[in-house]
Amino acid sequence: MSTKKSKKLDLILEEAAKLFRQKGFAGTSMRDLAERIGIDAASMYHYISSKDELLRTICFNISNTYISQLAEIEQTEATYAEKLKALVRLHIRIMIAKSAEVSVTNNDWKYLAEDSLSRFKEQRKKYERGVAALLEKGVAAGEFQAVNTSVALFTILSAVRWVELWWRPGREISTEELENSIITILFKGLEK
Amino acid sequence: MSTKKSKKLDLILEEAAKLFRQKGFAGTSMRDLAERIGIDAASMYHYISSKDELLRTICFNISNTYISQLAEIEQTEATYAEKLKALVRLHIRIMIAKSAEVSVTNNDWKYLAEDSLSRFKEQRKKYERGVAALLEKGVAAGEFQAVNTSVALFTILSAVRWVELWWRPGREISTEELENSIITILFKGLEK
Repeated sequence: MSTKKSKKLDLILEEAAKLFRQKGFAGTSMRDLAERIGIDAASMYHYISSKDELLRTICFNISNTYISQLAEIEQTEATYAEKLKALVRLHIRIMIAKSAEVSVTNNDWKYLAEDSLSRFKEQRKKYERGVAALLEKGVAAGEFQAVNTSVALFTILSAVRWVELWWRPGREISTEELENSIITILFKGLEK
Repeated sequence: MSTKKSKKLDLILEEAAKLFRQKGFAGTSMRDLAERIGIDAASMYHYISSKDELLRTICFNISNTYISQLAEIEQTEATYAEKLKALVRLHIRIMIAKSAEVSVTNNDWKYLAEDSLSRFKEQRKKYERGVAALLEKGVAAGEFQAVNTSVALFTILSAVRWVELWWRPGREISTEELENSIITILFKGLEK
């Protein structure tokens, strides 16, 4: 795909995600989207064939980012604590950079068509197993408290999810302070 | 209200919450609910006048529980850390005892009719301000790490929200282990 075409597609995906977040997947039409972007519907079909394809592309872009970044982090020479912290920072950064896409992935994945739906669920399971493995190895290495793995997995993934709803440019804190405060609570604990 | 009538209403509210969670607020009719409970629609209107009233009752039952328990906790002679831990345990216990009602309150509050909607938002703001005050006092008293208050507030409230989706009888861990693992991560930190 040419750079120009790929940039146009990125714009379409971003605007589609914003519309899905705002009006719901079911409540958004391809016509709404074309109007918002300011192109006619016929030209839009040059980039994307259907609403289903839009949703699939958004969900797998986000899902693939998580999977590939986890694979990269796994291969580094860091401690398990450092690896898990890098992953938490990654979650926060993706939510800030792509808040609408993350919101759609979190909330509208259930509207994926059958094939994509099972593939999406498998990827999510795979990602969760990868994070759970980091947690288990960290406990075994004596780096982490001996907490239940499922509880630690979901507490950590859930603890950052509000960022997608709350963050917007102009908030009184920097993204660095945001990341550091969350990392402090989850890894050092709130209590002194 | 007689005990018998009040018990019947509790049952109606619980079944309504389960239906809303399963089929969505918009996708559920009073007829669906009457069928599920096994009474005719006319008798159901003896207990509750409309779908709006059902939603309002569910959301304010949960919201009032949080508000009144916070008020109780605030009046105890405990440290701020103990107060906040008691509140986190309370969140976990409500999600286990009333998972459908909590799910509806978290997800469908936006369908509340206008008056109730603004009252609900005010209560939520009031609750968040109360928890934020505990956090600020705990930092001032030297009990807590000096993290950003908003970040701590939303990280802690968000960190327990997965329990409502995940918990069901028969999970391999006890509710006590669940609570203790979450409290350990948030207050002592995952890292040793």
